[in-house]
Amino acid sequence: MGFKAAGIACGLKKSGKLDLALVYSQLPAKASAKFTTNKIQAAPVIFNKKLLKQNRTFRAILVNSGNANSFTGREGLKDAEEIACVLGEASGLKKESILLASTGIIGRRLPLAKIKAGIPKLVLGLSHSGLDKVKKAILTTDTFTKEATAQFNLGKHKITVCGIAKGAGMIAPRMATMLGLIFTDARITQKALQKALGIAVENSFNCITVDGCMSTNDSVILLANSAAGNPQIEQGRNFNAFLSALNTVCLRLAKMIVKDAEGATKFIKIKVRQAKNFREAKAVALQIANSNLFKTAVYGENPNFGRIVAAAGASGAQIKERNLKIKVSSLEKKEINVTVSVGSGKADAVVYTSDLTPEYVKINAQYT
Amino acid sequence: MGFKAAGIACGLKKSGKLDLALVYSQLPAKASAKFTTNKIQAAPVIFNKKLLKQNRTFRAILVNSGNANSFTGREGLKDAEEIACVLGEASGLKKESILLASTGIIGRRLPLAKIKAGIPKLVLGLSHSGLDKVKKAILTTDTFTKEATAQFNLGKHKITVCGIAKGAGMIAPRMATMLGLIFTDARITQKALQKALGIAVENSFNCITVDGCMSTNDSVILLANSAAGNPQIEQGRNFNAFLSALNTVCLRLAKMIVKDAEGATKFIKIKVRQAKNFREAKAVALQIANSNLFKTAVYGENPNFGRIVAAAGASGAQIKERNLKIKVSSLEKKEINVTVSVGSGKADAVVYTSDLTPEYVKINAQYT
Repeated sequence: MGFKAAGIACGLKKSGKLDLALVYSQLPAKASAKFTTNKIQAAPVIFNKKLLKQNRTFRAILVNSGNANSFTGREGLKDAEEIACVLGEASGLKKESILLASTGIIGRRLPLAKIKAGIPKLVLGLSHSGLDKVKKAILTTDTFTKEATAQFNLGKHKITVCGIAKGAGMIAPRMATMLGLIFTDARITQKALQKALGIAVENSFNCITVDGCMSTNDSVILLANSAAGNPQIEQGRNFNAFLSALNTVCLRLAKMIVKDAEGATKFIKIKVRQAKNFREAKAVALQIANSNLFKTAVYGENPNFGRIVAAAGASGAQIKERNLKIKVSSLEKKEINVTVSVGSGKADAVVYTSDLTPEYVKINAQYT
Repeated sequence: MGFKAAGIACGLKKSGKLDLALVYSQLPAKASAKFTTNKIQAAPVIFNKKLLKQNRTFRAILVNSGNANSFTGREGLKDAEEIACVLGEASGLKKESILLASTGIIGRRLPLAKIKAGIPKLVLGLSHSGLDKVKKAILTTDTFTKEATAQFNLGKHKITVCGIAKGAGMIAPRMATMLGLIFTDARITQKALQKALGIAVENSFNCITVDGCMSTNDSVILLANSAAGNPQIEQGRNFNAFLSALNTVCLRLAKMIVKDAEGATKFIKIKVRQAKNFREAKAVALQIANSNLFKTAVYGENPNFGRIVAAAGASGAQIKERNLKIKVSSLEKKEINVTVSVGSGKADAVVYTSDLTPEYVKINAQYT
């Protein structure tokens, strides 16, 4: 695919686990990204947004876990710029071609010395199989790594879309994320790349919720480096094949995040049907998905459907009691399907979530 | 005060505890009420709203716990009408002078026979000290009864405002309630009564949240029966004295509900200062108050202030990182004060909430 990667433990995590990673594109790559809509944005988010406005191609993403570099003010932004500079010098890449991502505790300065000391090791360690280490190095409270790949052919050219993600708590829609890093060797126009990412994120990472809590660091970054040598994908040409592969990767990653939700014992799919429009369908689904009372009832395998009724009615969507129909699959299974028919139109939406358990409370009572 | 009351156990609660109650005004009383804004409204809410539009004075409130009579359709509304009729016959009161309230499980028909059998006992049991039983009969998962009283003098007339409430879970603003029944012997105009209740509810029951889950039954009903014989209170005359007493009662009850929050170990006051306007101040306070991550951190006595930052930034209010200041009192105490200065204006808001504990999850995993 024309990407190399590396991951190391540089001491940001007390556990000694991997916590610093680099993904490197052997060819200049176009980039598109989606970031948190939180008003407080982490330094790497601010850093990337500025770069993405100015620059046309990118070569690397440097990621750390264990520290979010968020709510760290001007100093935090300077720290971000400094590590990009250090990587630029160590790798020979222009510092403007380097994107950043951080995840972990909010409100503490990055331990710069540790990261600086780690960067040359990352550069030396780059390899074609390095993504296995990157997907470990970006984890925080996650219990498993998250990777998804989809391929398709354009004539004789095989095109790959490969993504990794982290996320288990502080997961809420818009952006519903976490970090998601997606790589493709497709040759594709900037416009088509952005459009595809927008659609794919809306239908995947923006359709999951664990706790309704929106992070300051959420980022999904997509790099496309043209290594497949295919005829250029445009909005009107071969776009759907690419979008379909990207959709597949994003949705698989999003579902993995929900399955890894902190303390969760159940994976819940909520489908809202017959709503006035997509916005209302999603609002109803999210209100149910974020209802602590619904989530605890699922944990207790207690079919308290009145809580679904109350949540649907509180969503702001137009709902009439006599048209509302609710179907819930057996709560004793690991995967639960909830279908809510609103009966006021033709729009559907699907949202994925988890149950709320005593374990979630314990994990988050002790974090830091 | 010119009110009598009674409470009995008629078998709605399996535990055999009190579950049916009647409050009776010896004089015709003006009424004002606030109800849930949930699109799904329980039968007694629909019943009361219709009556309050048509009727000018009221004589009684019949309340049951153990069953919400919600999401019960036309049958549920007929059930409500039928028990009002039965009470009318048993008491000699016009059925149009009777208001209703129900609380408990959603989606099940009322056990009519039990209630009908209980009504004559209630009528026979009415007494001046009966409110002690009413405040028990309206409880569900509450662990203690909630009552507050305030008095003031207008010339030689002593005026009393007395309220009771229930609520411990499914507590979210607009309406942030529960049931609240408030009685006063004041002589007051209908307009002044409504205005005072609107202000008092906005600053009390609409400023608390336990779990962000909005009920279908929330009702605050205020009866004023003129028994004090005072010169009539109007919007421009003696209004503030009455409002102040009503505010005191509502705020005390609201705080008691938060203190009794399901599984809670902490009482949290969140003050947001220097917001652009009251709406934004309240939005920030509520976003923090409803953040599971914030609430679990308080439970764990873990001063993870990044979660306050993330919640404030997700509230939709205009917030600049450099102006945001956060102060949190010692988390080891039972009562916690959080002060968030937004630095974008002059408006303040205060919201009360509780922590999120494994016990909350257990209570709600097993309810029904």
